[in-house]
Amino acid sequence: MRLHIKKTALRTVELVPKLHGFLMSQLPTAYVEQLHELDTNPYALYVTTKGDYHVWTVHLLTQEAIEVIAPVLDSLFSIRLDSYDEPLVIDRKEVCQRTVEELLDLFRTQKTDGTFKLRFVTPTSFKVQGEYILFPSVHLIMQSLMQKYHRLIDHGEPLDYQLLDMIEQNSKIVSYDLKTWYFTVHRHKIPAFHGEVTLKVYGSETLKAYVNMLLHFGEYSGVGIKNSLGMGGLVLDKG
Amino acid sequence: MRLHIKKTALRTVELVPKLHGFLMSQLPTAYVEQLHELDTNPYALYVTTKGDYHVWTVHLLTQEAIEVIAPVLDSLFSIRLDSYDEPLVIDRKEVCQRTVEELLDLFRTQKTDGTFKLRFVTPTSFKVQGEYILFPSVHLIMQSLMQKYHRLIDHGEPLDYQLLDMIEQNSKIVSYDLKTWYFTVHRHKIPAFHGEVTLKVYGSETLKAYVNMLLHFGEYSGVGIKNSLGMGGLVLDKG
Repeated sequence: MRLHIKKTALRTVELVPKLHGFLMSQLPTAYVEQLHELDTNPYALYVTTKGDYHVWTVHLLTQEAIEVIAPVLDSLFSIRLDSYDEPLVIDRKEVCQRTVEELLDLFRTQKTDGTFKLRFVTPTSFKVQGEYILFPSVHLIMQSLMQKYHRLIDHGEPLDYQLLDMIEQNSKIVSYDLKTWYFTVHRHKIPAFHGEVTLKVYGSETLKAYVNMLLHFGEYSGVGIKNSLGMGGLVLDKG
Repeated sequence: MRLHIKKTALRTVELVPKLHGFLMSQLPTAYVEQLHELDTNPYALYVTTKGDYHVWTVHLLTQEAIEVIAPVLDSLFSIRLDSYDEPLVIDRKEVCQRTVEELLDLFRTQKTDGTFKLRFVTPTSFKVQGEYILFPSVHLIMQSLMQKYHRLIDHGEPLDYQLLDMIEQNSKIVSYDLKTWYFTVHRHKIPAFHGEVTLKVYGSETLKAYVNMLLHFGEYSGVGIKNSLGMGGLVLDKG
């Protein structure tokens, strides 16, 4: 779901935590507590800027998240924040639904030549053994997406490391245009990057189709860390 | 040595191999044969563009290279290429000499806060186990410079891997702005990148001073592969 909010004096980096806090405050307390106990949030959100609008993108990834969060967003016409005087005016909403079946259909039917253009539209970062990783790799991107997919869609099926290995051995980042972009969360600066990466998958059609499906899923789930706080927004460019 | 050549219709990528070929043709055959047997060339060159000029930068890294190659460059006023009709007009030359003692002086005396801004001004790439590496790392950059330094200045002293480890453990790429830039050599496209990297060295003053010296050396030697064919041009920005 995309909410087009009339532009305010707030910068994106200030707006994201406020909108996240607002959204949480509108949800039933019991559900928020339940969210805190999950390894992977069933929602992802980020904010970008387009013309005179802040565009607030919220992805709801499970049936339950849709049932609880969608009505709250549906009923919003303006947002009153505790920490900002003026109300935020929502001008327009876009809703796009995609079912797991549609994703699987992608896997089964969509032809792909194995070249994928990934745009990281918000600061993106990975954490490995407590360290933030500032450069993407096939391993980090695909592991993150497989993890989210398995946790949210496959109900906690363990990650298939053999498959991940196979993707790694048959894929390559062939070009990129990336920049660091530190992201502030609770006054803590997280090292991150944004920009474009072109990924090429060699090997079997099935492997390409699987990567294709995972990347389309990634447009909803986000990639890397803190997708519920505006990080890791992924857009797939049509090659 | 920098030669400012009046701009021609040739693109930089076309000009570099021609200038390299021309230079080799002007050197004594025996010396060229000797060069072919070295692991690391005692010269590095690249071409950039500035206003109405192709700027051909040639770095001579050993006493012998200076004695053989410098007089050839000194005596040039125009260049006739076999494969280009018009002569290249050299408008101006800049010569800057730096001795090993001056480099060591840097090591002994220059204060540094440990933050280094590296600009890769021409396509830069590393090769590890036959594979081109498209993202830089502290390990790759410093290993490359240490190798060149040891081969050219320390007369083949073996590389001190313990020191390299120590640099790696105490340094980090803290920000970057990089893009891929494929470089054509003999019709073969080499995956490479260019752009900026900020490196932060923590740890002792001695370590910082050593990295400082190596990076200054790198401005002359180039970094990564094929520095004699225009790749790996490094400029250190004053922080």
